[in-house]
Amino acid sequence: MRKPNIVILGAGYGGMMTTVKLQKSLGINEATITLVNKNNYHYQTTWLHENAAGTLHHDRTRIPIKEVVNTNKINFVRDTVVKVKTDEKKVKLQHGELTYDILVVALGFEAATFGIPGLIENAFTIGNINNARVIREHIEYNFAMYHNEQEKNQARLNIVVGGGGFTGVEFIGELANRIPELCKEYDIDKNLVRIINVESSPTVLPGFDPQLVEYAMNSLESRGVEFVTGAMLKECKPESIVYEKDGKQVEVPTLTTVWAAGVRANTVVEKSGFVTNRGKVEVQKDMRAPGYNDVFVLGDCALITNPESGHPYPPTAQIAIQESQTVAQNVKKLVQGTQELKHFEPKILGTVASLGHNDAIGVILNERKLFGFKATVMKKMIDNRYLLKLGGLSLLMRKGKFNIFY
Amino acid sequence: MRKPNIVILGAGYGGMMTTVKLQKSLGINEATITLVNKNNYHYQTTWLHENAAGTLHHDRTRIPIKEVVNTNKINFVRDTVVKVKTDEKKVKLQHGELTYDILVVALGFEAATFGIPGLIENAFTIGNINNARVIREHIEYNFAMYHNEQEKNQARLNIVVGGGGFTGVEFIGELANRIPELCKEYDIDKNLVRIINVESSPTVLPGFDPQLVEYAMNSLESRGVEFVTGAMLKECKPESIVYEKDGKQVEVPTLTTVWAAGVRANTVVEKSGFVTNRGKVEVQKDMRAPGYNDVFVLGDCALITNPESGHPYPPTAQIAIQESQTVAQNVKKLVQGTQELKHFEPKILGTVASLGHNDAIGVILNERKLFGFKATVMKKMIDNRYLLKLGGLSLLMRKGKFNIFY
Repeated sequence: MRKPNIVILGAGYGGMMTTVKLQKSLGINEATITLVNKNNYHYQTTWLHENAAGTLHHDRTRIPIKEVVNTNKINFVRDTVVKVKTDEKKVKLQHGELTYDILVVALGFEAATFGIPGLIENAFTIGNINNARVIREHIEYNFAMYHNEQEKNQARLNIVVGGGGFTGVEFIGELANRIPELCKEYDIDKNLVRIINVESSPTVLPGFDPQLVEYAMNSLESRGVEFVTGAMLKECKPESIVYEKDGKQVEVPTLTTVWAAGVRANTVVEKSGFVTNRGKVEVQKDMRAPGYNDVFVLGDCALITNPESGHPYPPTAQIAIQESQTVAQNVKKLVQGTQELKHFEPKILGTVASLGHNDAIGVILNERKLFGFKATVMKKMIDNRYLLKLGGLSLLMRKGKFNIFY
Repeated sequence: MRKPNIVILGAGYGGMMTTVKLQKSLGINEATITLVNKNNYHYQTTWLHENAAGTLHHDRTRIPIKEVVNTNKINFVRDTVVKVKTDEKKVKLQHGELTYDILVVALGFEAATFGIPGLIENAFTIGNINNARVIREHIEYNFAMYHNEQEKNQARLNIVVGGGGFTGVEFIGELANRIPELCKEYDIDKNLVRIINVESSPTVLPGFDPQLVEYAMNSLESRGVEFVTGAMLKECKPESIVYEKDGKQVEVPTLTTVWAAGVRANTVVEKSGFVTNRGKVEVQKDMRAPGYNDVFVLGDCALITNPESGHPYPPTAQIAIQESQTVAQNVKKLVQGTQELKHFEPKILGTVASLGHNDAIGVILNERKLFGFKATVMKKMIDNRYLLKLGGLSLLMRKGKFNIFY
């Protein structure tokens, strides 16, 4: 029998960890492994809000794929996936086509804008390195422009963040730390700058422990953040946003709207004909797509329901990394001819949200609440632990977060 | 007799040095000295091109006025001069009015756009700290945007500099050093970036020694700069510029046009009713405005003809600083009742143009040519010498340029 072709689509948390695990566990004569990604680097999506705020350089967040993947063992194809043709066992790329025997779909997320008018045209999203660094530059450019106009334009200093979920709140935390630096750089009175968070739920971080949410809001408000909860974003115009609260519409002048309120699975999944639920593949217990014995789906493209709550597990890095363990093991089993695959069992270790580099909140093992210094340390430990798993000590030393005491 | 009021308008090279010299030479009981400036800082105009290119931070270029001026001896008024009312011996400010017995007009320059359509609306000028830092941010923002658009926009990577005089060439020299860094930061192929200099004369740096001009052009061309000489800028549009060369019009797509081709004296001089020649006051030998025994004019607002060439001396920092010596001495003479004033005698020590931080060309004492390392050292020595004169050793140590060997 010829060597099977394993093709892994996407080098995010799920795809990258699957690749690294298969690189270790499969011999070079057992299978040909090909990783496809549109950039020649991997990045930690959960760090992008820091790059966007300008508090961490994006080169700290991204990792060249060849630094983690041994290209003597793994083929790397830099291209964009257009479609999976499951009937032909092929993947159509923008500049080519690949044949697979076993496919791993880990194509991540796209921003979901729910049809809100003007959002696609006028708002930024924090989805990748390119987005993140242009947000940083856009905010800085507007601050730089402020004193170059006869009539001062307050819209240059108003920053609106749509969505008070994880990404929105973490981004605001970094912004709140960054703004005083920008004000110093461009001779702008700090009191003129507004950071406004618009969230449709009655509270930010819905679902999080109320005591921790209050801690987070106090921490951010003390740094000048304004929260508008229970408000729906109605329109994003080039120089303002409109939201509705208590039946009244409010227009806020701004040149900077960052939409952090929704993600959906990569549309390639839907386009490829997989059966989807809210755009995601409701995977079987062994992480395979229903109806296919050679296609695994994980990360933000996969949907798994938490049997206790009846709701899907949230699309987090934690889940994607845990899934990659099962996927890598099951791919190996298939290569070695074992048909009895492992079932995925998620273990939610905890959730920590940073509020700037010096504050955070979190829940560990669903019971212990953390905030302030301890939560900050925990958050950085989680980030560092991932780097260690992905690329060992040398990657950790190069990209890790060790600024715990300042 | 009551203490005379000396009012100095402008804290550029001329005004600042006049103030510092009077602070030393006049006793606190001899006169009341008031310095008026629109910012609370002085800056070295000849360093702004480095701030604009992003190779030197603008805080290195500006000096808080209170660090150089002893505010126990000198009044500082932060305001913008609207008009001098010589008949009432008053200065109208945006937020007030001052009475003078002796006036020093050192209000510097404005950009001259010669009525070229679109230049005021669509081009940047390098005239002050606000302009300079927004140029830096504008270029960086366009590089950041490049990979965020489906259709790549070459206009974001084309930078057009209008004018191949001193400022234009020095700015290009810094840009040529900065671009490779920006390309690395935003994953842009260096070969895609164009730096285009459009100059109406048959050569850049007209009037400079031809051998040195050739050296300069070779140095910059080897770093990717394109020179279009003998070409007139016809129009500056929001997304392109149009120039005419050899009777043909050429349009270059660009979002970044920097106009470095012309300055004129501050229009306040003309508005105040002084007799002007090309917008400047043709001062008498004692640096007073013709018809006034109590108004001195210096720097870019003053015109002095070089008797040898028959042309005016160029508006340089060197001349302004030398003039301030004569003005300060003559102001002191007036205060002390001496009517016989000193005549100004310019001494052109030399001219050095930088071509980035590691290359330069120059002529010393009108005879010795310098280029490369020696010219670079000379340029930095000139910059440092000024700081020493202005604020002594402590200012030199804080703001000086000592990066001679890298």
